[in-house]
Amino acid sequence: MDNNDKVILEEPVSDFWNVWYSELHNQEVGLSIKIKKMLYSGESEFQRIDVLDSCYFGKMLILYGSIMITEKDEFIYHEMITHVPMFTHPDVRNALIIGGGDGGTLRELIKHQSIKKITQVEIDKKVIEVSKKYFPEVAKEFDNPKVKLVYEDGAEFIKKTEEKYDLIIIDSSDPVGPAISLFSKSFYSYCFNALNDDGILTAQTESPFFNKNEVRKIYKNLKDIFPIVKMYLAYVPTYPSSLWSFALCSKKYDPVEDFDNNRYKNLNLKTNYYNCDIHKACFSLPNFVKELL
Amino acid sequence: MDNNDKVILEEPVSDFWNVWYSELHNQEVGLSIKIKKMLYSGESEFQRIDVLDSCYFGKMLILYGSIMITEKDEFIYHEMITHVPMFTHPDVRNALIIGGGDGGTLRELIKHQSIKKITQVEIDKKVIEVSKKYFPEVAKEFDNPKVKLVYEDGAEFIKKTEEKYDLIIIDSSDPVGPAISLFSKSFYSYCFNALNDDGILTAQTESPFFNKNEVRKIYKNLKDIFPIVKMYLAYVPTYPSSLWSFALCSKKYDPVEDFDNNRYKNLNLKTNYYNCDIHKACFSLPNFVKELL
Repeated sequence: MDNNDKVILEEPVSDFWNVWYSELHNQEVGLSIKIKKMLYSGESEFQRIDVLDSCYFGKMLILYGSIMITEKDEFIYHEMITHVPMFTHPDVRNALIIGGGDGGTLRELIKHQSIKKITQVEIDKKVIEVSKKYFPEVAKEFDNPKVKLVYEDGAEFIKKTEEKYDLIIIDSSDPVGPAISLFSKSFYSYCFNALNDDGILTAQTESPFFNKNEVRKIYKNLKDIFPIVKMYLAYVPTYPSSLWSFALCSKKYDPVEDFDNNRYKNLNLKTNYYNCDIHKACFSLPNFVKELL
Repeated sequence: MDNNDKVILEEPVSDFWNVWYSELHNQEVGLSIKIKKMLYSGESEFQRIDVLDSCYFGKMLILYGSIMITEKDEFIYHEMITHVPMFTHPDVRNALIIGGGDGGTLRELIKHQSIKKITQVEIDKKVIEVSKKYFPEVAKEFDNPKVKLVYEDGAEFIKKTEEKYDLIIIDSSDPVGPAISLFSKSFYSYCFNALNDDGILTAQTESPFFNKNEVRKIYKNLKDIFPIVKMYLAYVPTYPSSLWSFALCSKKYDPVEDFDNNRYKNLNLKTNYYNCDIHKACFSLPNFVKELL
């Protein structure tokens, strides 16, 4: 048999593994991401947890059917929920994270050496275990001696804590599943009471494009409790609509007027999204977003 | 036969029309949009043209397989490519639009009464015809007496025009298909020569998230020609990655320093995205975007 007898497919079917993750935002629009490998699927006491390895975004943590983080873009959300309040308040020493089981917010907070103590309250121990295993670069600070980890419902913890915090970060999943209670007015009220007189709270507050009604309600609840409530925006490619909102709620400091450029420069933070221009620009809202507030 | 004999499906198959438009950005990530109805499909001399009616975004114009506009979000792109240069230059009287066959940029330009003449050069007459038929609210100003419409390749037109413009807007499709020549250095150079001494050019410059290499090349080309080149960003939900970049290239005026707040207020523009805060904030770039420039 010479070479001419060989039977070879001219165009081999190279792509027989053709698996896509699709996240529908409202049954009418979705983001589709091609998957290399499914790494983990499990059920905790609270929710379904999946880890998928994707072609473009690297590994992805999916809670309750929604992308929480991907290796490629998690820096955006975590930098923006952390550094915006940290450069608004002049001296955060005692901070509380509610949720944030992947560890990204904790990693960013730890970059600020002024912080003496961080309490993190995560309802679902399994999320932290899975994150430590599959996202070691994100979940890298849970063993830091400054960190006190509490496995409890944040809404219950905040009712009875006797500590006072300079900063509370609500790094929750969406208001379905285990995070529903973290969007209520009474929860925000307990947070207000647990803050020092110049304390700040930040929270992720969903997509102002797809979740208009939820955004309206969240800001109404926040404004009933806090004297200063400002929305800021970041672009997160793997979140619904990519336009993501955060609330900065404050008892005293204004995030733009009280921003300290020198302190920012001195800390010499390594960030991929956040910078001093973004700190101010992110509070400028398009008209269709302003209308929600 | 009494009612108990009736055979009725308990859960009727209500959703048997289940058609999705999927636009893959890099073979690994895509946006999927549920379609109500396919309204038009045709081939012009230059490209395939489709109009689909979608559940969430309304009617969508698709050129060469990419979404150009949707009824729900076209305002963002058109406001941003038009009003940012219009409030940078103090007195635009003679403007040139290259591309922009859907008419949205023209509609926004016409809102500025100072403009005396607008020349629009569109290579594909069919795009304008289809837009007039299916998007009458977007393509509404083609018959305005201030407008001179030329059906020609913009790259050829600009070589031989003897007019001088205050503003050139390059409202092109992506650098595949008929728009390739609108991203070259020699094209930008001809544009420079066709501008008055204080003229401004704006152009859409692709996604800084998905098209990093293209963005780098475009800005290198622009910076070789114009003394002032600044990137600005807007969030367009139906464009790849939703983060969209524009270049403001100027011979004299700086878009932030020369922004005239009073002129903006006096014109009392009705916009859904653009406002005076956004004008300044859109030039603040995340670190991962700055690195491209």
